[in-house]
Amino acid sequence: MRAMANKRDLIQPRTLKGFRDTLPESMHAREWLLGTARDVFRSYGFAGIDTPALEYEEILTGKGGEESDKQMYAFEDNGGRRVAMRFDLTVPLARFVAQHENELGTPFKRYHVGPVWRGENTQRGRYREFYQCDFDTVGTESIAADCESAMVIHDLLDAVAGGEFTVSMNNRRLLSGYLEGLGLSERAAPTLRALDKLDKIGAEKVAEELRREAQASDAEVEGVLSLAALAGTREEVISALAPMVEGSELGERGLEELREVSRALEAAGISESRVVIDPKTARGLDYYTGTVFETRLSDLPDIGSVCSGGRYDELAGLYTKSHLPGIGASLGVDRILTALEELGRVERRATPAQVFIPYFAKDRLADYFGLASTLRKAGLAVEVYPEPRKLGAQLKFADRRGHEVAVIVGDTEWESGVYQLKHLATGDSSEVAKDALAEAIRALLS
Amino acid sequence: MRAMANKRDLIQPRTLKGFRDTLPESMHAREWLLGTARDVFRSYGFAGIDTPALEYEEILTGKGGEESDKQMYAFEDNGGRRVAMRFDLTVPLARFVAQHENELGTPFKRYHVGPVWRGENTQRGRYREFYQCDFDTVGTESIAADCESAMVIHDLLDAVAGGEFTVSMNNRRLLSGYLEGLGLSERAAPTLRALDKLDKIGAEKVAEELRREAQASDAEVEGVLSLAALAGTREEVISALAPMVEGSELGERGLEELREVSRALEAAGISESRVVIDPKTARGLDYYTGTVFETRLSDLPDIGSVCSGGRYDELAGLYTKSHLPGIGASLGVDRILTALEELGRVERRATPAQVFIPYFAKDRLADYFGLASTLRKAGLAVEVYPEPRKLGAQLKFADRRGHEVAVIVGDTEWESGVYQLKHLATGDSSEVAKDALAEAIRALLS
Repeated sequence: MRAMANKRDLIQPRTLKGFRDTLPESMHAREWLLGTARDVFRSYGFAGIDTPALEYEEILTGKGGEESDKQMYAFEDNGGRRVAMRFDLTVPLARFVAQHENELGTPFKRYHVGPVWRGENTQRGRYREFYQCDFDTVGTESIAADCESAMVIHDLLDAVAGGEFTVSMNNRRLLSGYLEGLGLSERAAPTLRALDKLDKIGAEKVAEELRREAQASDAEVEGVLSLAALAGTREEVISALAPMVEGSELGERGLEELREVSRALEAAGISESRVVIDPKTARGLDYYTGTVFETRLSDLPDIGSVCSGGRYDELAGLYTKSHLPGIGASLGVDRILTALEELGRVERRATPAQVFIPYFAKDRLADYFGLASTLRKAGLAVEVYPEPRKLGAQLKFADRRGHEVAVIVGDTEWESGVYQLKHLATGDSSEVAKDALAEAIRALLS
Repeated sequence: MRAMANKRDLIQPRTLKGFRDTLPESMHAREWLLGTARDVFRSYGFAGIDTPALEYEEILTGKGGEESDKQMYAFEDNGGRRVAMRFDLTVPLARFVAQHENELGTPFKRYHVGPVWRGENTQRGRYREFYQCDFDTVGTESIAADCESAMVIHDLLDAVAGGEFTVSMNNRRLLSGYLEGLGLSERAAPTLRALDKLDKIGAEKVAEELRREAQASDAEVEGVLSLAALAGTREEVISALAPMVEGSELGERGLEELREVSRALEAAGISESRVVIDPKTARGLDYYTGTVFETRLSDLPDIGSVCSGGRYDELAGLYTKSHLPGIGASLGVDRILTALEELGRVERRATPAQVFIPYFAKDRLADYFGLASTLRKAGLAVEVYPEPRKLGAQLKFADRRGHEVAVIVGDTEWESGVYQLKHLATGDSSEVAKDALAEAIRALLS
């Protein structure tokens, strides 16, 4: 029967448009990134949660705006229910907290890592399934949560980007208070939209846009641009801001919040260059109400923010009458993986096993497994090639897969108890007695 | 506006029937289990992969039988494509390997952990979204892969169930060869179905069923039951099996395979009581062709196998003409978590932070964060309570959440540099100088 099969009988193996498989090299990087993020979250007491991929459609509809609704994977299940696949992790968090309020207690700190689905236009290079990695503190207005969020973002980026990043912090109350002072409150939306483009299009074009879209006078333009131009240490920026918001209740409160976060960062030993106060960071218009964050990689600023978030007033008002303010941020998993790969800062390996044992003394299979087992007990990850092929072919395979060292043991070596240890990248070989093997491998790997 | 909201305006926060949220306690256990499994897979050189939740419907239809098709979440996406959510990780693996064959190379060893979806009847206590955790070696017929699979299953269970388990191993060729010798080849299906119930219903009822469903004679019944009754060390069972399959090419090949795996287990130091040869293990009828595995927890044998699998001849015949034999197994994530919970062998904690720092000296917020930061740098996970509430209320919160120790620092302690360290479960307190704090906490935790 099988011999009769022809091409037309086969189903073409393919993924849906906008979807992709994750091959070992990429998976290795993703697991490393998400594992690192989890460790940081956990070190601050954030607990992991998960929610279903599918929700009642009414839970998700209208929560992410019109575009989200259009992009949603929504359908009728076999039981006649209208269901939809989650398009982010924030709406499910709101539903989750409202549903389990009593059980969870507040303040509630959670992280959530998982795929979400949006039927995006793939021409923009977007995928229809992608990972999100969020953390939030829900149920407290205390500035302590803002301080902690800043530290978590710092530690996250420190762990994954090795120091080459800047977290820009600002406060929406400060911004609003300042615009109020300039008389721009009514025109805050177009003003902040223009301001947000400063890094991209420069001061001149922002000024033009402010005049055109916000009907700003020359004095107003100057006011906005002088705020945006502030830079320096956190203390310097705070000092410069003080007279600019004096008399505005909102502005002064925002500044005091920045001051508190700044003090906590200082106490935690977080460098001035890693977390800066940048008064032009606005971070969207509607959702955030206090502290806001954006994060850029120093060597790739143009890819945009790789970790963003801020404080909001009400997480779950659609599902519960409880007042649930909070603060959180989201790590851009795909963006940061692409960036780290571009910068060569992420290991691409098709295998997690550093050690490769070719199997070529045909009758010694059990011995090869015994050796592998000994090395595993010493904490090493070990691959035994499963077929007794020629040594050269096996070593070629090992090199291509990305194994780092090979332990070569043929009949002679089995008898002498002295094995060949080969570094695959350099080709260097040495002879090592079996009892010294694990240590010698570790020395080679480090 | 908000004050006017009434109950009817709220959307009821609820999950779909058959779906569930994973709260911190359960997530903690799941992350531990899956993390442990990943470490074992990686120590053997298995690489992680992922595939999309959604596939073309034609990729999935008909692959898991009629029931799978009926239970599938299938629908038309916004682009008019027929799509479906994956119902297991094996069909996606077949599609994946066929699609990326050249890039991956064989033998290819992968693990895959992720949710799958089936519209199951929830009355049987089944969920419609659940985790699978699979590993497979694809593209080799070598018995080396069977040896390794047995070791991986052993190490997995050893790591998660702490020694209290039995892996039952058998070989379908051995079974077929033996039934051939008894003249039962044509009636193998009803025979194996009956045999499979031995542990549940006992020898007498199996004999009845063999007579009724397989038209077995008394001699045939005796033959089947005498095979099933074999027990002892791996070497003893192999010796007893040798005369029973003598002359059957299939049976002798199966026995030789068991012997090879047995030798490798011996060389890897895997105890006789942990992996046994059990000739009645059949593991389904159609799919498996050689070595098969089942695993039971010693203290909860009735919940059934928690890790099962075996060798198959052709993984991806529907998608490619390449011959892709392989072997793999699946860890029953939900079943094992339920079991470990029932046995009290899994930690249930709502927080990953062992250390709790109450914040009650109101003006010292930055100092509390400085202290927390120092402890984190010493490798501890630390929660700072975000609001300056009364100490008693904070400690009650800490106890309920599952934090283990509290570091209590009020104005007096900030000045003296000597802090109170409290063990929350026992209530014991001691005074510790700040420089000795991390070490003292570690001593208390161990």
